Order: sequence, then C-alpha cells, then structure tokens
Amino acid sequence: MSVYVGKSVPRRDTRLKATGEARYTADLALPFMLHAAVLRSPYPHARLLRVDTSRAEALPGVRAVITARDASGVKWGVFRYTRDQEFLARDRVRYIGEEIAAVAADTEEIAQEAVALIAVEYERLPAVFDPLDAIADGAPRIHDHAERNINIHVPIHVGDVDAAWDACDHVHTEMTRSEEESYFMTEPYAVLAHCDRQGTVEVWMPNASPHTKAKGLANALELPVSKVHVRHVAIGGAFGGRSDMFPGEYITALLSRKTRRPVRLVYTREENSIAVRQGHSMVVESRFGFKKDGTLHAVDVTCHMDGGAYSSTGPIATSVPFLCFEQTYRVANVRYNGYRVYTNKPIRGMIRTHGRAWACNVDMQLDLAAEALGLDPIEIRLKNALKTGDHTPTQSHIPSMASHETIRAVAEASRFREKWKRLPPWHGIGIGCVSVMSGFPMGIRGGSAAMVKFDEDGGVHLISGVVDNGQGNEGVVLQIAAEALGVPIDQIQLTASATEITPIDQGAYSQATTLVSGNAVRLACEDARRQLFEVAADVLEASAEDLELADGKVFVKGSPARAVPLAKVVRSGLLKGKSVIGHGSFGPNVDQRREWIQNPKGQLSAAFSYGSAVVEVRVDPETGFVDVLDVWASHDCGKAINPKEVEGQMDGGVAMGGHGGILLEALRWHEGANLNTNFLDYKIPLAPDMPPIHNFIVEADDPVGPFGAKEGGLSISMCTAQAYANAIAHAIGTHIREFPHTPDRVLDTIEAREGTEDEAS
Amino acid sequence: MSVYVGKSVPRRDTRLKATGEARYTADLALPFMLHAAVLRSPYPHARLLRVDTSRAEALPGVRAVITARDASGVKWGVFRYTRDQEFLARDRVRYIGEEIAAVAADTEEIAQEAVALIAVEYERLPAVFDPLDAIADGAPRIHDHAERNINIHVPIHVGDVDAAWDACDHVHTEMTRSEEESYFMTEPYAVLAHCDRQGTVEVWMPNASPHTKAKGLANALELPVSKVHVRHVAIGGAFGGRSDMFPGEYITALLSRKTRRPVRLVYTREENSIAVRQGHSMVVESRFGFKKDGTLHAVDVTCHMDGGAYSSTGPIATSVPFLCFEQTYRVANVRYNGYRVYTNKPIRGMIRTHGRAWACNVDMQLDLAAEALGLDPIEIRLKNALKTGDHTPTQSHIPSMASHETIRAVAEASRFREKWKRLPPWHGIGIGCVSVMSGFPMGIRGGSAAMVKFDEDGGVHLISGVVDNGQGNEGVVLQIAAEALGVPIDQIQLTASATEITPIDQGAYSQATTLVSGNAVRLACEDARRQLFEVAADVLEASAEDLELADGKVFVKGSPARAVPLAKVVRSGLLKGKSVIGHGSFGPNVDQRREWIQNPKGQLSAAFSYGSAVVEVRVDPETGFVDVLDVWASHDCGKAINPKEVEGQMDGGVAMGGHGGILLEALRWHEGANLNTNFLDYKIPLAPDMPPIHNFIVEADDPVGPFGAKEGGLSISMCTAQAYANAIAHAIGTHIREFPHTPDRVLDTIEAREGTEDEAS
Repeated sequence: MSVYVGKSVPRRDTRLKATGEARYTADLALPFMLHAAVLRSPYPHARLLRVDTSRAEALPGVRAVITARDASGVKWGVFRYTRDQEFLARDRVRYIGEEIAAVAADTEEIAQEAVALIAVEYERLPAVFDPLDAIADGAPRIHDHAERNINIHVPIHVGDVDAAWDACDHVHTEMTRSEEESYFMTEPYAVLAHCDRQGTVEVWMPNASPHTKAKGLANALELPVSKVHVRHVAIGGAFGGRSDMFPGEYITALLSRKTRRPVRLVYTREENSIAVRQGHSMVVESRFGFKKDGTLHAVDVTCHMDGGAYSSTGPIATSVPFLCFEQTYRVANVRYNGYRVYTNKPIRGMIRTHGRAWACNVDMQLDLAAEALGLDPIEIRLKNALKTGDHTPTQSHIPSMASHETIRAVAEASRFREKWKRLPPWHGIGIGCVSVMSGFPMGIRGGSAAMVKFDEDGGVHLISGVVDNGQGNEGVVLQIAAEALGVPIDQIQLTASATEITPIDQGAYSQATTLVSGNAVRLACEDARRQLFEVAADVLEASAEDLELADGKVFVKGSPARAVPLAKVVRSGLLKGKSVIGHGSFGPNVDQRREWIQNPKGQLSAAFSYGSAVVEVRVDPETGFVDVLDVWASHDCGKAINPKEVEGQMDGGVAMGGHGGILLEALRWHEGANLNTNFLDYKIPLAPDMPPIHNFIVEADDPVGPFGAKEGGLSISMCTAQAYANAIAHAIGTHIREFPHTPDRVLDTIEAREGTEDEAS
Repeated sequence: MSVYVGKSVPRRDTRLKATGEARYTADLALPFMLHAAVLRSPYPHARLLRVDTSRAEALPGVRAVITARDASGVKWGVFRYTRDQEFLARDRVRYIGEEIAAVAADTEEIAQEAVALIAVEYERLPAVFDPLDAIADGAPRIHDHAERNINIHVPIHVGDVDAAWDACDHVHTEMTRSEEESYFMTEPYAVLAHCDRQGTVEVWMPNASPHTKAKGLANALELPVSKVHVRHVAIGGAFGGRSDMFPGEYITALLSRKTRRPVRLVYTREENSIAVRQGHSMVVESRFGFKKDGTLHAVDVTCHMDGGAYSSTGPIATSVPFLCFEQTYRVANVRYNGYRVYTNKPIRGMIRTHGRAWACNVDMQLDLAAEALGLDPIEIRLKNALKTGDHTPTQSHIPSMASHETIRAVAEASRFREKWKRLPPWHGIGIGCVSVMSGFPMGIRGGSAAMVKFDEDGGVHLISGVVDNGQGNEGVVLQIAAEALGVPIDQIQLTASATEITPIDQGAYSQATTLVSGNAVRLACEDARRQLFEVAADVLEASAEDLELADGKVFVKGSPARAVPLAKVVRSGLLKGKSVIGHGSFGPNVDQRREWIQNPKGQLSAAFSYGSAVVEVRVDPETGFVDVLDVWASHDCGKAINPKEVEGQMDGGVAMGGHGGILLEALRWHEGANLNTNFLDYKIPLAPDMPPIHNFIVEADDPVGPFGAKEGGLSISMCTAQAYANAIAHAIGTHIREFPHTPDRVLDTIEAREGTEDEAS
C-alpha cells in the first residue's frame, strides 16, 4: 500500500560526501576566525598548584587564554544528580588528557605554541586504573562525593532470586571481562563557535543531540537556551559518542565570548580518542539457573564498569546492558547490581555496542545450559525468548516482537542445527539474540516535534530536530513525510537539527529517531494534509473528508479526475491569506520517572526491536586467528522504512559489534596513558576485512511506530557480538572469558584447554 | 493596557551595527570561495555580434566565464506579462551597464582582469534617453514587443471628467518634471551564492523580499523554490530598491553552479548606482478643477515615466503615485493616464518616495486653487481630505484615517496660518499631505505566516519571514509577539527571512510588514497561548479559558497567586509529548485581481495611513540656496508599536523625501551614461545638513492592524517633499516646476519671476 515507505530510496547526502563537498565542522570558516588549542593534563591524578598563563598571553598572535578562572563553575552530567565535571579543571585533574587551559590565536601553530608556554605546577596524587581496585579499601578517592569511588549503583531485584536457585536443575556462574573500546569516528571532533554582541552563541560541531548540547552549553555559559544556536553541519559518525557535552564546545564558546571573534577548535586524532569519550570496560559475574526443560528461572548478575574520571552520559550505560537482557529473555527471578566506578582514566559514555562482557556472558550461559541439559542453542533460545504481549521483569509491555521469527530466519538460512554437530575441526557456529528499545525515557527531550510548510510551487519544507550522523536519519523522515503527505520525496526539503529553528528532539540517541521523530513528522504531515484538504475542498467543490492526496495532487476519493495540483491548492490558500503550516508533536508513552536509570520500572520504551545473528568461523589453532566465513543477521525492525538503509545498519552492526568488538578493538594502557590512539595502533575492521553478511529483515509492523517502524541496526550490533563469541567457543571447544578475542587470547585459551585435556587424559 | 507595544524598546541590532560586528553580504566568506566580476555594456544600445571569452578563460586563476549561452533564457519581470529581461544580454544591450558576461576567479583582481579580456563586437544602434522622445514617431524601438516604447499604460477614469470642468470655478493646468533619484544605500549590492551537488542553492544578499528573490531565482535557474534558500544577513538599507531580482544574483548562482564552489560578487559603488535600480524620472501634466468653496471636483493627469531599459518592478510605480493621491483627497471625477516608457537608460524600480513631480504637482494645485479662491492652504486641505469611512475613487474603503488630526497637528504646532501671511521676505512656509497604503495587492506573496516555538526554559523562538533593512522591522514583530504572548521581549529570539525556514511573506515591501507580518505573528502567538493554556490547565487544575499569561507566568484570571512559570508549563507539555508550536497566517482583505496595477478597482489595501508636514524655509536670493528652518511632521500610523522607531522613520522620511528629494538628489547624464554614481558627485543629505524636525505621532488605532498599527514612515517621506516645494514657492513667490529644486533652478526661477514682474511693471 505504501508508496514511499519501504523503498530503498538513495540517500541525498551521498553525492556530497563522495565528492568531498559535504562541509564538516573542520571545513567551516568564518571571517576573522581564530584558532584554538587546549592544554591537557599529562598526569592521571594531580592537584593544580599554579597555572601561569603569562608567557602564553605575551606571545604575538595570541588573542585569549582561559583557565578555570574564566569559567562559570557550572558542572556537567547527564542527570541533575551526576553533575561532577567542570569543563576546565579548577584545582585537580583526574585523567591524562583533562582540559586545564585553552588558547585562541591567529593561527593553529601559534595556539599550539602558546599552550606549550603555559606553566603548570602539579602535585601528583596516587591514581587508580581498574574498577575493582578503585572500590577496594584504601584506594585513592577521586571525587570527594563518591565513597569507594562508586559513581552510580543500579540495584534491581525482581522475584526472589535467592529462593529460586533450589528450583533450578542447572546453575552456573561465569566471570567475563572486557576492555575499553574507542568510538573512532571518521571525523575527529571539532567546534566552531561564535558569540556575538547580542549575547547569542552559534555553535557547529559533530553532535548527535543538538538540543542536549544547547541546554548543556546554555547552562555552562549561563545563558537562556534561546541564545545558544546549535547549527546543522555534516557529521562523520557518532556511534553513541556525540550525545554528551564536551569541554571543547564550552571552551571554544568561552574563547569566542572573550575575543568577540569566531573560534575554531579541531581535535587531533589522538585528542578525539582521549578527550571525547570511550566505551566502558567491565567485569561481569553472572549466575544463571535453568530448569531441566531449559527454562531460565533465576539470574543474578553483578557488573563493575570502569567509568573513568567523570559521569557524563556514563550512568545510562550502567543499566542499559541489563535492560537489553531482560527485554530479550523471560526470567521470573532476577537480580542485578551494576556499579559504575570512577577511575583515573578518560571519561566513558554511551556506545553503540553496550557491554560485550555483559551480553556475551548471557548468551554464553544459554549455550552452556543447552549443552548441560541436552538441548541445542536454537531450542533454548526459542524457549526463553520474550515475545509480543509479554512483559519484562521490570514491567514493560512488549507491543510487538518477532523474536522467534528472527531466530528461525538465521537458524534456517545458516543451517545451524545441521552444522552444530558436524562441522570440521576448528570450525564453529554460534548464535546470539538481543532486544533493543526504540528510545528509553529521556524526559523533556524524549519527545519530538516537527513542522511542515509549503512553497507556492507545491514544494515542501520539513523542519525537524532529527540528526543524521551518517546512518541516514534524514532520509528516513523524508520518506515518512512523503508517505504521510502523498508528495514525492524529491519535492521535500529538510531543515534539521538547528536548535533555534527545529523543535525539541532527543537527537540520534537511544535508537529513538525513527519511532519518535518519525511519528512527530508523520503527525505534522497529517496536520498539513488536513489543512490542504480544507483549502482544496473549496477549489474542488467537495467535502474535505472526501479528499485524497497522492502524486502531488489533491483529488476526490474514487474520482481521480476531479483533481487539483498541490501547487494550486497552496496558491489558492495563499491568496486567501492561509499559509498551510502543519505541526506535530509526539512523546512515546513511557514511564517518566526522575531516577529511572537507577531503578527502572514500568514502561521503558514504546517499542522493542529484535535481532538474531548466526556466525560461522574457522580458527587457526597455530596463530589464533579467527576467519569469519559467513554471518547471517536477522532483524525485526518493524517496518523497514528504507530496507537498504536498514541493511546498511545491519552490515555496520556486524562490523562494529561483531568483527571489531569481538576480534579487534581494545584500548591499551600504561598508568592511565592511552597507548593506541590512532588508526595504526587501534584496529577497526575495514571493508576488505569483512565476511559475507546475509541480512534478513523480518518485518513485524509495530503498532506505535510510524508506518510500523521501530529501531534499526543496534540489535544486530549487539547480537552479532554474542554470535561471534559463541562461534569461536564452538570452534575451540571452550569459551574465552576476555573481550576482545584477539589471536593471543584465542591461542592462550586453546593452549589452556589442551593443557587441561592433557592432564585429564 | 499594552505592556510591550507602544514602548520605545531599543533595537537589538544596534550594538552589532555600531561595533562593526554585523555581517553584511560582502563580509561573508565560505571555504573555497571564488570571486566574481561582471562585464557591462559600454553602449546604451547595441547589437552583440560576437562575445569571445577565450582569452579570459585562458587566464590562470579563472574558474568559469559565463555569457547568455550558459543562461536558461528565462526572463524576469515582476508581473507575468512584464517579463522582458534576461539576466545576461543575449543579442542586444539596452543600457550602459547591462550585464554581458561574468567571470569567477580565485581573486577579485583576476576576475576583473579576465573581464577586461573578454572581446565583444558591438553594432551600435540609435538610442533614446527621454520618455517623450521615446514615444515620438521614428524613435528607435527598444523592445520588439513595445510599440512606441510604451512598457505599460495605466488608464483610469472615474466619474466623467470631461463633463465636470463646466461645474468648476477654478481650473488650472500644471506641468512638472523630475529627474531620477538614486537609492544610494549605504551598503553596495553583493551576493554570495553556493550551489551544491544536491542541486540546492544558498544565497545571501541585501534584499527586501527573500521569497520574491527565491521564486525569481528558482524560475531563472529552473529549480523548484524549495531548492533555493535565500538566507538571512544584515542589510544596509533598501528604500524600495532591494525587492527586485537583479542579474547579479542569477549570475553568481550560475557561476557557482558551473564551478561547484561558492562565489561572491561585490558591486562597486558605481555598479550599485547603475546596475541595481534607480527612481523613475517623470513628466506630469495635471488639470485640476475646483468649485468656489474649494471642493476639488475634477482631476485629469497624464504622466510619462522614464522606465529605463526593462520592466522589473517599475510597472507598479506607474500607478502608485496616482493611488497615493486618490487616497488623500476626495474627488468625484478623475482621469489618469500613466505611461511607463522604455528608454536606453538603467532600469527603474520602486522607490520609497514615489514621484516628486507627481505628488508635488498635486499639492501645488491645491495651493494655487486656495490662493485663487481666497482660502488658505490648511482650509483647502481640510475641506478635501479623505477620512475614516470614505471610499476612494477606485472604491477602497478607508477603515481608519486621522487625516484632519494630522493636518491640524502640524498647522497648529508650526503656527502655519499666523506665519502664512506675515513671514519676512524670502521666508516661506508650506504644507503637504499624503495617504499611503499598508500593503497593496501582492497575490500569493501578499500575506504572511509565522511560527512560534518554546524552549524548555520558557524561551521563545519566533519564525517569521519579516525582513529588516534597517528600519527596525525585526523589533516590531518582537514587540508584537511579546504583547500577544505576555512574555518579555528579551526572552524571544527571532529567526527571520530565511526562505527554507520562514513561511511566505511579502518582505519589507509596500509598507506591509507591521500590518501583514505583524498580524501573522500575533495570530501565531495567540495560537501558542491557547496551547500553553491547555497544558497549564492540567497543572493549575483550572479551565483553559480562565487562564492568563503575563510576565512569563500562566495564572488563573483574578487569582494571580495560582500561577505557574512558563518554563514549567513548557516542560510539563514536553513530558507528555506535547511541544507547544503556534502558527498564524494572515492575508489582508484586498481585491486580488491579476492586472490590478493597470486597472485598480476595489479594496487595494487593508489600511491607509496619513502624513502631513509643514516646512519653513528661508531662501537666499543671491545664491538660490534654501535654508530649512524647521520641519513639523505628523503621522497617523495607527498605533505606534515602537514610537522611537516611528520617529526614526519620520526623520528618515524628511531626509529622503524632503531634504534629499527636493533640494539635492538628481542623477546626471551624458548620452545614457550616468555621470554621478558616487557619494562625492551625488549629494544625499547627511546628519549635519538636516533641519530641526518636530514629530507628532497621531495614534488612531486601526481596526485591522495588530494592536491598531499600520504603515509607519513612508507618508512622511512623501508629504514632506510636497511641503518643501510649497514652502520654497511661498518664499520666492512662484512654484518651481522642476525637481529637485537645486540652487540653480531656484535662482533661475527667481530671475524669471523678477523678469516677468519687471516687464509687468
């Protein structure tokens, strides 16, 4: 039935990006622009005894030097109760790379030179780099307010876990660990800020949530939100790492305010790695209990996450991996204790692949239980998978979830059961499953609104807060608008993510865009349609209720010959002083409670997507190298607004979550110093590294999503990680408990297992 | 009653403009930007035999050269039936300065050098420079379609003029002539255009009507309107001369499209004078018949206007001076024949002071009749002035007009009657009156719409197509929004005149902004208020109808303690997924007929303002120099939204219409070549030249205007011209029939009169 939705419409920005014409922040320039550079802490933990900027200020070409003395003292944190970071360190630095001072100068070179002239006297303090060390007695205290360095504790208990073990036939405990990932966006972070004498601040930067940025900046600059204009610019990737406030944007705005000139700050690749965000490392201890028919009956998990020096958006990451689990598998008794712990390492935020150690631990438990109980991995998952109509332990109702269909799709396509018992030696096959929310409760920035207006020639302008970090969100809302209006996509222009123009929106965040922003766009278009029909009713001498809009024409239902072109309807309205302007507003029906992240309860998302992946590997027992032979990925994303884009997200999910997350990616450290901050030292999968990927979109129209659509892509990023890990375990005969599964770890695990077998024989 | 309307709120842009921080188009730069220059015709009329761009193209640093061969061939003209101009001359040039070719190069210098390398072979054609010569037999034909070079003829006849003369006691014929004025905006014209590979064109330029520009450019570039984004930028004056399409914007966009790089074109002062627009010169012959009690009974006017080489917006100027007359004085029998005639001179457009020769002729006729009939100038004007409830000859109803009040205000303040009979020799006093429309029928671009949205902290964003050329229009709609919302002005941010975002609007054109755009803003705010009250009704447990909004708080009427801050209302809405977005749309109730300009009939404007001025002068009979002693100006602008701004407009009106228009401003010519194209040779009044001005705002709330407001300023510009001319005539004892009244003309007239008196004695 749909005309524009469900088609693989080519993206509008591809030509700009392919030709290099797209303008990213570092490409922007304003007249009289200055260049900024930042002085960063060389120590993981130290007191600042003296910051002397006099020599820097005296350098010709330097226009301003700022330190905490110039800053408002306002602290940042995504929740009101987690505000722990000043954007320029005031008396103490807590990680290597923390911002101490910044310079604006005529050239980048002068700015760098001036930074080197700032004299800082430090008193080094003892530092701690591991979350378990950080909560131990006698560990150095990183923040005065955080006892045992615990930043946030999420305690959840549903049912009665302690009483439940007795009813279990198989109980098993697992401990897994994962290292930190880097986001490694293609575009390093950059900011261009301009404060004018009206007190208005314009800011351009790669970002996933302009309204969050505008609010954070307004707070820090002590301005009303209306005076902070976060502007649209091309963005080279986000992966969860562009939603936070960064010191860079505050510093740049402050330098501009001080110099009354535009200021641009462009991070080096190294700075982007250290001073933007990183993924949490974590230690997960799980105890799972199953009944003999394979029913998961009790789960108890404790997770310690290394949050680095400050909160930022990190607290959200403390519960999200748990939520993904509880929305995937049914379990009557479940306890979770999540701890995000401060350490003297860079700040950790939300990342697209939440918790390798967590998610893989769960699926590992299922495989081990299946083996112990004589089931196969498919059977045990089908038995425990949540599905449409179910409730999660924390009481979210699942309005639609094609879990069984996605599991069966990959199982059948991969011939899983057939291969499971008879693959050649060192070959393995594994499956992973996960459910992901299409937006979790984000308060006033959890909804979205959109406006739509018409040109005199029938062209349409859509105004929406949607953000496109590269995943194609702009195209998604254009397709939704085209469908809702009945107007060809190429007649619709989009103005997106400029905070002074576009209404509030959560941004490309928490997988909400398609469902939340998409619904706002749909409603705005429906409102505009109604107005168009009112005008056209006069022109066509028909009743507005009898009208239809398609192919850019308004016509009487059932009498397509009684038609009038859209442009004529618009002009006819304008002649009567009636400008057609539609608006729509959508908020997901979720339980908005202030501390939901620590105590999730009630409806946490309007929709839940599902992903299943099967991976087949061959492990080289001599080198530990894992050769991925095939990936089958299956995704219930509701209706796929643009199937090619969904497949693109699925491919990207396999690359990031599976190939990168399980085989390659880990940050390396020495005493809090990040050692691999560039593309040579930190490996991400490149196109030639990737295995064949077979994508299966399972469309199960969601009752809430626009035209049935919900989250697309993240499910695959997560479940593929689990499938990779399980496939490797199948190939080598045992699970590896540390992530990523780099060749050395694979080899160590094989050797350890062979050692055990030797001993046993 | 009003809180924000009627206050002289300081303008928001003054600080930016005073410090030089405001960015005008020539200040803008984009990465990889090229610079443009234009080759212009050195001949007033010639055939283009050959245009050879090869040497220019070969110059290093040249990126593109364009001629008519690269152009679409689409012609421009403000009405569909007056499209006569291609933006690059195809086979013929018709004035000195016409665009033949253009270059985009790495620097301005290279672009200029390349222009000089373009070889053009011309065949010179006979040219004509005067409208009366141009309509004479045997005159060179400038356009194939225009017989006798008549571009447009406006014939109006109401009553029976020929039969009416017999009933008149005083009949007199006058012939007046005026030379061309230049607009001389402080900011020379400039364009920055950027066409990207998505086919979208961004354009920045000083302009008064972004939506007109967008449509014209879209036509010429053969794009949908939605792909042409005319952007907001600071503008240094318009005076009617920024509403047209200019070749510069098309050329720049075309160069950008060809080079795929941003291109900037900055006109020299000379180019701004010749190639933007000029005011029409005209020859006016009038015959006025009065009854002995002073009643104006019959009028017959023929006017020939020199339109220059093309139509542009000029056709509107053919009838507007007549309309100003018929809306000022009551007359039962009136005939008008207006001719706009093509000549080989630069193009003439709409200018803020329509028709010195026309308007002054009318008021001269009234003074001469008063003298002949033994009345004084005040009496005859009060007798004939149209007023509230009247209809114009062409059948516009006047909903409000404080004509008598403005006449009396200046008559009394100046002690006109007292001075009229007993001023010292060479002293004179004169009065002028005029009524001006607040917007005439502009079809689909005659209305306006606005949107308003709220930030989470209660801040407001207003989105309106209003344009501020320096007169303060942005401040006007901000005050209207503040009043309509009940929110302090400094909490409101305005996004204005960016065509992809702001709904359609006529622009700063035809004096419509306050009434039309202001009403759209008012309605948008009222819509938003309603939505806010719906949300607040829940919070306050009250009925939405009982709520009021003031000082940024919503409260229960009569119980101000039951209040909730606006920010809380907004947040409460957002939590429920309800983003408050108001929109309003307003079209003035006028008769929209396609050819109204040639045949005005019915309601031509929703409101009519009124201005009267009295001027006292002393003429030096030795030098012909006119010393202006005092100006009293009185203006019925409805409600003055910002009295200081209205007074600023009145001061500006005296300077432009009176002091510049009557004493100083005239373009000088040699064979179609404009000789005074800069500030040294073309005199405009500067601040120290100006006389004391006594302003009187007569507030007569208009029933249609927002909070009673209508047009502000143009009335004074026009009526002051008439008062200047009449005062000089009073001082020297006879009227001068040529405009401006430069010292040589004053002296010539004095000498001619003295000669006549000598002969008579």
